[in-house]
Formats: sequence, C-alpha cells, structure tokens
Amino acid sequence: MKISCPKSSLLKGVNIVSKAVSSKTTMPILECILFTVENNVITLTANDMELGIETIVDGTIYEDGKLALDAKIIFEIIRKLPDNDILIESDAACSTTIVCEKAVFTIPGRDGEEFAYLPSVETENKIIISQFTLKELIRQTIFSTLDNENNKMMSGELLEVSGDELRMVSLDGHRVSLRNVKLNDNYPPVKIVVPGKTLSEISKILTGEADSEVSIFFTKNHIVFEFDNTVVVSRLIEGEFYKISQLLHDDYETKVTVNKKELLNCIDRATLLVKESDKKPIIMTVSEEEMKIQLKSTMGSMNEDLMITKSGSDIMIGFNPRFLIDALRVIDDEEVSLYMINSKSPCYIRDEENSYIYIILPVTFNVNS
Amino acid sequence: MKISCPKSSLLKGVNIVSKAVSSKTTMPILECILFTVENNVITLTANDMELGIETIVDGTIYEDGKLALDAKIIFEIIRKLPDNDILIESDAACSTTIVCEKAVFTIPGRDGEEFAYLPSVETENKIIISQFTLKELIRQTIFSTLDNENNKMMSGELLEVSGDELRMVSLDGHRVSLRNVKLNDNYPPVKIVVPGKTLSEISKILTGEADSEVSIFFTKNHIVFEFDNTVVVSRLIEGEFYKISQLLHDDYETKVTVNKKELLNCIDRATLLVKESDKKPIIMTVSEEEMKIQLKSTMGSMNEDLMITKSGSDIMIGFNPRFLIDALRVIDDEEVSLYMINSKSPCYIRDEENSYIYIILPVTFNVNS
Repeated sequence: MKISCPKSSLLKGVNIVSKAVSSKTTMPILECILFTVENNVITLTANDMELGIETIVDGTIYEDGKLALDAKIIFEIIRKLPDNDILIESDAACSTTIVCEKAVFTIPGRDGEEFAYLPSVETENKIIISQFTLKELIRQTIFSTLDNENNKMMSGELLEVSGDELRMVSLDGHRVSLRNVKLNDNYPPVKIVVPGKTLSEISKILTGEADSEVSIFFTKNHIVFEFDNTVVVSRLIEGEFYKISQLLHDDYETKVTVNKKELLNCIDRATLLVKESDKKPIIMTVSEEEMKIQLKSTMGSMNEDLMITKSGSDIMIGFNPRFLIDALRVIDDEEVSLYMINSKSPCYIRDEENSYIYIILPVTFNVNS
Repeated sequence: MKISCPKSSLLKGVNIVSKAVSSKTTMPILECILFTVENNVITLTANDMELGIETIVDGTIYEDGKLALDAKIIFEIIRKLPDNDILIESDAACSTTIVCEKAVFTIPGRDGEEFAYLPSVETENKIIISQFTLKELIRQTIFSTLDNENNKMMSGELLEVSGDELRMVSLDGHRVSLRNVKLNDNYPPVKIVVPGKTLSEISKILTGEADSEVSIFFTKNHIVFEFDNTVVVSRLIEGEFYKISQLLHDDYETKVTVNKKELLNCIDRATLLVKESDKKPIIMTVSEEEMKIQLKSTMGSMNEDLMITKSGSDIMIGFNPRFLIDALRVIDDEEVSLYMINSKSPCYIRDEENSYIYIILPVTFNVNS
C-alpha cells in the first residue's frame, strides 16, 4: 500500500474512526485502524465488534492494499507531523514508513486481512434527519442512560419511529428523559434500543450542521448512520424497552413556571454544599408567586427565593439536585414548567407540545434535618 | 464582623490567598482563610506555616472583626454567586451568613484568634524587580526542581544577588537550569534557597506586567514578596546550595546552532514512541550542516534531519528527550546553540550573554538497539 494524504484529511479521518477502536481488548487487531486502498478510494475502518465506523479520506493513491495500523500510534504520529502531505507506505511484511517533510517514522503494521470487517447491512428501511437534530436529540437524552454492565437495557436508548414522529427515551430508574421530533416524511414504524455508547460516539462525530443530513437505516440487529463520507454501524440491544406509556399523562396538582437560568444557577450553587458521598436533597417549597429553594448539609445551608408563576396547590418536595441540573442544562427554553402532584409522585418538566419530557422521582426528606 | 464587597474583588482576593492554604493538614484552621477587618482595611490571610499570603480587598466595612472561614467552601460560594455585592456577616458564635441578591448561605466559621499569623519580618534588605521578569525567571527555571520530600535542597531554587546581577538556579541531579538578569540598581549580596512551591505559587499570582514592580525582602529565614495589594512570606530552605561554579565554563568541542522550534517539534514528535516506563534516549548525530535525530523503541522508530550551523568536531550523543523539551520550551529565542564536548559530558544550551544556561547530562545508548 502506498498513499499520500494531506495531514488535515488524514487527521480528520483517523479521529472519526478512532471512536470505534476498542480500548480494552486482548485482540491487538481491534486496537487498529484498517487502511483499505482499492477502486480509487482510501477508506479507514475501525470496529470494536459492537460499533464499526468507516470513512473516506482524500489523497493520492500510488499502490492499492490493505493495512492495519495501531490506532493510538498512527493518530499521535499524524497529529504531531507538520501540516503538509503525509506519505504512508508499507512493505510485504507490513512494516510501514510514514514520511512528512524531513520526518520519517517506521512502525510495524498488520495484515489487513486479519481485520474484522463491518457487517454488511441491508439498507432498505431508513429515515432522514438533519445532523443538527440528531446531535441535539442525543445531547438532550443521553445523560440519563446508565453506564452499567449489569443492566444492558438501561445503558441504551429507545428509538421509536411512528409516522412522521421520532421519539428517543432514556431512563435510569430514578428519571426518564424523552424527546419527540417531527420528521419531514412518514416512515414505517421502528422500535429499537440503541447502545448509549453508540449514540455518544456518533454525537462526537456529527458536525451538527442543520443543512447536512443523516440517513439512518434499521435492520433486526443493527442500526446504520450515513453522513458526510462516513458510515457508522452499531449492534442493537436485544429485548424490549421499558413500557413508559403509563407514565405519560398530563395530570398535575401544581404547575410552576420559572426562569430556567435562575433555577439552574440556584440549584447549582446549592450543590457546592453537597459532598459526593452524602446525598442531600434540595427542597422546594412552592407558595403563591414564590418558590423557596433550600439545602442543608454538614457544610452549611443555603436558601434562596425564586419568583415563579404558579397554578394549583402549594407543595413541598425534595429532589436529588444532580437530576434537576442535568435536565435543566439541556433545555434551551428561557422558561420551564414543572408539573407536580404530591411530594411522593414524579415531577414532570415539559413544554406545552411535549417536545421534551423530563420525569424526575422526588426523594424523601426530613424538614428539620 | 460585617462587610460588603463586590464579588470580583472578593473572588480575586480569595483566589490569591488560597495558594497558601494547606491542602493536607490535620489542623482545620490551616484550611481556612482569615478575614481581618480593622483600621478601615479588609485583609485576607492564609498560612500553611511554610508559605503565608496576605492581600487587601475593596469593600464596605460595617463592623470590625476577625473570622476564619473554610477556604474551599468560601471560594466555591463566592465563585457561584451572581456578579454583585456580597455581604458577609458573622455572629458571636462565628456562624456566618453570606448574602448576594436573593441567595443566602449560612456556614460555620472559626474564631480568628485561633489563626496562625504571618511572621513579622524585618523589611530592610530588599531588591526591586518587575513582575514580568520575576514571572519569567520562575517559568524558565522551575521545571528542574525536584518534587521530592527526601531531598529538600533540590526542591528549592538558589536565588543569588551580587551587585546588579540576579541569578536563579535549579537542578535535579540530571540537569541544571540557570538564569541571570541585570537589576536596575546595585544591592548587597544575597544567597538563599527558596522553596520551589513558593516560587510556583507566586508565579500564579503575579500578573506578569512589565511596568508593575515586586519588592523582594530577605532575612535569615524568610523571603517576602510585596506587589499590588499582596504580601507573600515564605520560609527559606536551610543549608547551602550545590556549588555549580565548576560547571560554568565555556569549553566545547562542538557547537550546533539550530532553529529552536524545528528542534523542539522534532523531539516532541519522537517522544510519542516512548512509553513512560521505558526510557528511550533520543540520539543526535551531528555532521557538516546536518543533525540527524533518531529514536527507536518497541513501538517503532523515527528519524529526521535538521539543518544546522556547526563548528568543531562531529559528535553522536544521546539524551532523555524530556530534558531537552523542558529546556527548549522555555527559551524564547528563535535559534538556540548547543555546546558539547563528548558523548559523556554535559551539553550546554546557552545564549552568548549567558542570560540562560541549561546543562543536560547525556545518557548512554546502544547504537544498534
């Protein structure tokens, strides 16, 4: 194999596929990036057996071939080389020379044939969505997935298409994050569970442009994202996602509307009195036109009154401040509404159109502690 | 005690004195910042018994007093409060209320009388230097101090004044970093060893302005820095610093002059092949008009030829790449000169005026490994 690519496109390509390089594996080939040079195209591929990414890079081809190079080393070499054309050449033993200006690196490579190819996936059933929307959907739901080997289902997100509606849902047992968006077209129904890791890696690669599209293909076991010059293939999580329909109702006893930034800053301030280990709740006391926010810990206490618009009954309710902060951070509205029933029932933070719904379980608290 | 200060000046003051707050101590009072309000001045003080810092903050005084507050908590509270005036008020039991707009924090304080005051130091023998120069001197020498409890002397820097010359020297057994600067005046001789930690904390506080001055006072056991509204007092390291005079000579067999940035980038690139654990040397082979830089490790090999101006004999010599990088990073010249005698003798990186001298011991290497 012999190619020459501008540093910038090589760096971009390696950076993209690196997201699918296995970080903990006993198989060295999974720590590699595959360079495939054939049919006048230079393709980079990485595959950790759950997630696979393939991207095309610009460059000049002198000789076809397949070569696997250690992802970390090749990334560091490219990153530190001058901003100029980089020549990559391998010999029959896969020993690889990388030349840029006067710098010459020689590193061992591996036969590309050892590499585990991406599964070839039927690309029939698909939807189209903008990069911007997909990136936002992930940002606004990913935080309530659970990074826990023992609970596969909670480590993923429900992705559901019905008609022209796309819904994404994540939950961790204490809260639910849900986003609904309208698609530009009607599609056949889809209901799958995508690994959280896939979504979080995808969102790092997406440029997030509003006028750039992503095609998403679905099969029984896989989801495929196609955008720019990149293809991402991921296994799905098997099984059925939690039924959340009975949670989705509009009942409430108290509705509080408050400036989002003020509420977020206030809770964020209060958490400085909370050490990781002792989980102190934040207590909200809602009365006419005012919401008192209080937190007490061994380090001290904080209280602050926020102006609100209230309808319904007064209420006193406690929350894990972290959960409120996570939800408030990803909401872009200037004002948010909290819907509550009583101090034992979940609180709903949602907009009028239900384009987002964050459901947070309250915690019990002792008023005097 | 009762004061009101703008958030910005309080935050700046707390940030400055925090550098002298003890991070590992069994005495809670050493984790505190002392607020002293008397004679129409609000002073913040911190003191870890080695290093003490005192700074004056702007504000309105309602009631004099002395109060010690946990440094981390008060810093976090101030940082997270809105950008407005902050009222701090303590009662007889030192319970302290911090109010900003509608946010109210209550935290426990401590009696200011428990606090260990800064030693009062005679301020007779002093020199004056610009903040810029002092900050540069520290940056350009601090990296070769040794952070090691077992070798106090190497954890400090020599500070030597003779006539109108100020010299700072640090060394760690493998290398020496030395800077000489001219002062604007003649001063009586001084020769002391300042803890590296003091210098590194000072350099974080210095704004580094060229037209702002620092007065440095010396006593037998202490050094005092005065600048802006801040006083820093530090203990000295007792004992005599290493004699380095016999190292300071101008002999050489080979002089190499090279573009600093090219050399630095080249060595920096090579180090990506070095894992922390295996210490592979970088090998320089100097011949007519060219210096070959090579590094070989289990991960691969790199070589690069740099254009140089050479006088004297050819040489092949190996170094710990880290030591070269540290020195080259802090040199501001476009070109640097390396003076070498043979592959066993230290290499000198210095300018014509000896305003800086970096002495680096070479390492042995196996040409074929």
